[in-house]
Amino acid sequence: MTQNLSHRTRVGLLRAELKKRKLTGFFVPRADEFQGEYVPAYAERLCWLTNFRGSAGVAIVTLKKAAIFVDGRYVIQVRQQVDEKIFQPFHLIEEPPAQWIAKNLKKGDRLGFDPWLVTVEQAKRLREACAGVGALFVAVDTNPIDAVWKDQPARPTSALETQPTQFAGLTAAQKIKDIRKAMGGNDAVVFTQADSVAWLLNLRGFDVPHTPVVPAYAILPASGKLTLFIDPAKVTPDVAAHLKKIATVQPMAGIGAALKALGKAKARVLIDPAWSPERIRELLARAKADIATGPDPVTLPKARKNRIEQEGARNAQRRDGVAVSRFLRWLEQAAPKGGLTELDVAAKLRSFRDETGELKDLSFATIAAAGPHAAIPHYHVTEESNRPLGRGEIFLIDSGGQYIDGTTDITRTVIVGEPTPEMKDRFTRVLKGMIGLSMIRFPKGTCGSQIDVLARQHLWQAGLDFDHGTGHGVGAYLSVHEGPARINKTDRTTLEPGMILSNEPGYYRQDEYGIRIENLIMVQEAQAIAGGDRPMLGFETLTLAPIDRRLIAAALLSEAERNWLNAYHARVLKEVGDHLGGEELDWLKKACAAV
Amino acid sequence: MTQNLSHRTRVGLLRAELKKRKLTGFFVPRADEFQGEYVPAYAERLCWLTNFRGSAGVAIVTLKKAAIFVDGRYVIQVRQQVDEKIFQPFHLIEEPPAQWIAKNLKKGDRLGFDPWLVTVEQAKRLREACAGVGALFVAVDTNPIDAVWKDQPARPTSALETQPTQFAGLTAAQKIKDIRKAMGGNDAVVFTQADSVAWLLNLRGFDVPHTPVVPAYAILPASGKLTLFIDPAKVTPDVAAHLKKIATVQPMAGIGAALKALGKAKARVLIDPAWSPERIRELLARAKADIATGPDPVTLPKARKNRIEQEGARNAQRRDGVAVSRFLRWLEQAAPKGGLTELDVAAKLRSFRDETGELKDLSFATIAAAGPHAAIPHYHVTEESNRPLGRGEIFLIDSGGQYIDGTTDITRTVIVGEPTPEMKDRFTRVLKGMIGLSMIRFPKGTCGSQIDVLARQHLWQAGLDFDHGTGHGVGAYLSVHEGPARINKTDRTTLEPGMILSNEPGYYRQDEYGIRIENLIMVQEAQAIAGGDRPMLGFETLTLAPIDRRLIAAALLSEAERNWLNAYHARVLKEVGDHLGGEELDWLKKACAAV
Repeated sequence: MTQNLSHRTRVGLLRAELKKRKLTGFFVPRADEFQGEYVPAYAERLCWLTNFRGSAGVAIVTLKKAAIFVDGRYVIQVRQQVDEKIFQPFHLIEEPPAQWIAKNLKKGDRLGFDPWLVTVEQAKRLREACAGVGALFVAVDTNPIDAVWKDQPARPTSALETQPTQFAGLTAAQKIKDIRKAMGGNDAVVFTQADSVAWLLNLRGFDVPHTPVVPAYAILPASGKLTLFIDPAKVTPDVAAHLKKIATVQPMAGIGAALKALGKAKARVLIDPAWSPERIRELLARAKADIATGPDPVTLPKARKNRIEQEGARNAQRRDGVAVSRFLRWLEQAAPKGGLTELDVAAKLRSFRDETGELKDLSFATIAAAGPHAAIPHYHVTEESNRPLGRGEIFLIDSGGQYIDGTTDITRTVIVGEPTPEMKDRFTRVLKGMIGLSMIRFPKGTCGSQIDVLARQHLWQAGLDFDHGTGHGVGAYLSVHEGPARINKTDRTTLEPGMILSNEPGYYRQDEYGIRIENLIMVQEAQAIAGGDRPMLGFETLTLAPIDRRLIAAALLSEAERNWLNAYHARVLKEVGDHLGGEELDWLKKACAAV
Repeated sequence: MTQNLSHRTRVGLLRAELKKRKLTGFFVPRADEFQGEYVPAYAERLCWLTNFRGSAGVAIVTLKKAAIFVDGRYVIQVRQQVDEKIFQPFHLIEEPPAQWIAKNLKKGDRLGFDPWLVTVEQAKRLREACAGVGALFVAVDTNPIDAVWKDQPARPTSALETQPTQFAGLTAAQKIKDIRKAMGGNDAVVFTQADSVAWLLNLRGFDVPHTPVVPAYAILPASGKLTLFIDPAKVTPDVAAHLKKIATVQPMAGIGAALKALGKAKARVLIDPAWSPERIRELLARAKADIATGPDPVTLPKARKNRIEQEGARNAQRRDGVAVSRFLRWLEQAAPKGGLTELDVAAKLRSFRDETGELKDLSFATIAAAGPHAAIPHYHVTEESNRPLGRGEIFLIDSGGQYIDGTTDITRTVIVGEPTPEMKDRFTRVLKGMIGLSMIRFPKGTCGSQIDVLARQHLWQAGLDFDHGTGHGVGAYLSVHEGPARINKTDRTTLEPGMILSNEPGYYRQDEYGIRIENLIMVQEAQAIAGGDRPMLGFETLTLAPIDRRLIAAALLSEAERNWLNAYHARVLKEVGDHLGGEELDWLKKACAAV
């Protein structure tokens, strides 16, 4: 994105290219070929075209009009970053692209799209929207933005690493064997998600920040070797040796011929329409393969961490908890003196994590939010927005680390100076919700939307709520946002033992302050209780760092909540305190004292 | 069902009739033409054929085999009532008819069904199951059971009554005007549910017990008069005068010609496939009408009680609460003396309700369950099962009344003598759940499955749960089980102001005892709270009768729960006590004392 062209010029270049190709418009998602949360620089086409820097969005550019669609997180940001004289902004969910197409396209229009960047389900929806007005949704062979983006970055070529079995818990060969049992009679599965490939083959990659996924496709036949389609430059001798017995490696371009061969063999091939590129489906259809659709069979076993992954998670969380606890002590002492900014504090937390000697990367860009910035749940500090931590203000920090044995994600909210009674009331309501979810037992078969209310009820009783989910799945040295289970108002995925989720209720008072308390929790079989008549599940709390006692209105806690909090802090003191000494340990003792 | 034929003979008669009609089997639901919960005697074809007396079930009889399908409530009962040498029993949900068809029918088979008794959605599912094995699902013109059931009862001809506007809140003309606004551009709606017709036209009928619905179909065109299809014998001069300006009355048989006329007029006609008889769809399709499918537009306005219906509900509940409270006093004094049976007690409660002078009917057959019988959530006392109330045992009574201003449904669980500590623990956990749901506030847009956990969490924490929903909708002098909203583990219907639901968590210890505490609650806008930033909803408790304090372990209640309970009892004392005197009032004061 270094080429110094105005965005008006960029849109002009694209329109000229579209005319050349006899297209009347083009659909530009913020996606690469693997549909992950982070994309490498070459795939930041939406940003190049529009200057929008959020993590999700879509633009549609026709010869006359241009629209950009972003979700609730980005409705303010999009107006700051994108020139509204060029792109009209829309709410991605409330006024989705399909609706815009119905209003703005007409009979005979040809809306182009890059079928490697659009999933089967998205393509179906958009094709239907186009058909509704007599227009066509046209898959292009090469991306027209790439044709006009002169200084488009090259594709990254970082080398892969193998994930040792001592952390993965199972060899890739064993995982492949298990997945074959779940293939449901299909002759082959095409894996297109970068974290599925990483998990299945015990590989990690480093093309995108924060998420060590492997940008590759894989075809797993019911018998015989898996074929991995990947840039060969990434395959080190170590990785080649690791793959030798289980997989054949081909360049990405080989996938077309492989899909054709499946068609020729009349194979029944499973793809996940929610994630698979439309081009994969199209190539299979063209080859007359029998296409079966269903969820990626890696999704569930990847989410249900095995015993070794669970133990790794505990170790990673303890290590991370030591860094965060040391940081919190530093913050408590340094912040009231003044002069600290959000960027300073984020850098300091990074340095404590670096001192563990084990940090591979942050698991996402740290949200360090002072005062009113904390009221923006997905605030992202920049040089321009950077704000000093003020006295009497709340400071919220949401961060995480990638370690070889686990991925962490923790939010702590602290007060600089003295909180107001309202801040304490709100903080305690959020805490009660976090504790309620931590303590619950639930029968097998329960899903996240059934228990989400436990994190919200104390806010609801005060006429308050928070407008984000309560929890997302977390990977094992993989994506910090991992499917399929979530804890929110709608999710119907059954919670199963070994799933790691975040537990992060919040409260946001616009322009004033924000509160979020986040621990990671892991689903476990609950210990049987005398008199109980059915097996129950529960959560093991993984995250270990003190919760700011200065913000707690202890009188609002029930006895059970108070007992939970005191036991949690006692555990933090034991598990984190074992790795601290001197003044740090003294501070931790005070921070973990009973309320 | 008086004809003294063995069920083997009945099945033989049906098979002979099927052969005559060149059918290889017949599908027998427990349904009449209106898909209500209660059916008149002439429609008890399933019972006549099988002797199964439950409120839901299906049989399939082929020339060689016969199967009966019942849900979880009836798996024991079906084996007691049905000869397993003739009918093989199956679980309606886990081994549904479609699965049986796939296993037992073969190419060329012709499975008959009565399309007036099977909904559009059921017919589609069963037709597909038949098609899967090359068989046909064949709509018959007359029901073959009727041909062989010599002493089939006549159709009931009870006269309709009008529901005065002072209780309905809106005239039928106003309701029709409102429904037209919700017709979504369709030219006509066909109403086929007996409670929809009753609500829309402010009529009540008396063909089936407990539910004053109107067995009729109605066609509402976008303009002009509604046509009501009903047995003219039911239309009294009063009812005719009531309908004069808004509806034309035709006999049921007229519906065929009316649907044909809609087709001829190329009308777009709305039917609800979940409830409409398949024959209605078929007649519309044959007439080449444009069929639109969607929820019955009466369902939501019927569920959202208007101001007058709400006030009526309060009055009916207070009146019913007086009867139930008097009954509870009688029971507390009479039961320990011994000699009382379940039937005695149910009759006594009925007599207290009769003494109100306002009782139209019970809203369902009373569940009066002593000791281990209470562990069966849907226990139905008969002369054979009738059990005395024993000392030291729990007694559960679930009952309700139909009044012109409202429908009631209440469960109270009491101890005869002294409870065990376990009984008190379980009772208190159930009570905590009932109170938790009563107290909650929630944002607009919340559905029942999001808050269901509040009624279960205290049981879950002890490794327990209950295997039924927490709440069902309740009509206004209509069905005691009314859609669309429910409070259970899966329901996604948004809760809206004016909806009346039951709040009835329970606990069942097989072969020992059962507990259920049920109040009716009504969704209301919650009073705004200082500092709250969004509008919230909450529940108004309608049911007024004491909860047995002898079963409460007060130490297990939180302060908020105790406050709720004491305030509830204070309200019962005031609202019910105003209508009692002497020893009854003295008793109520004690029963409502603070814990």
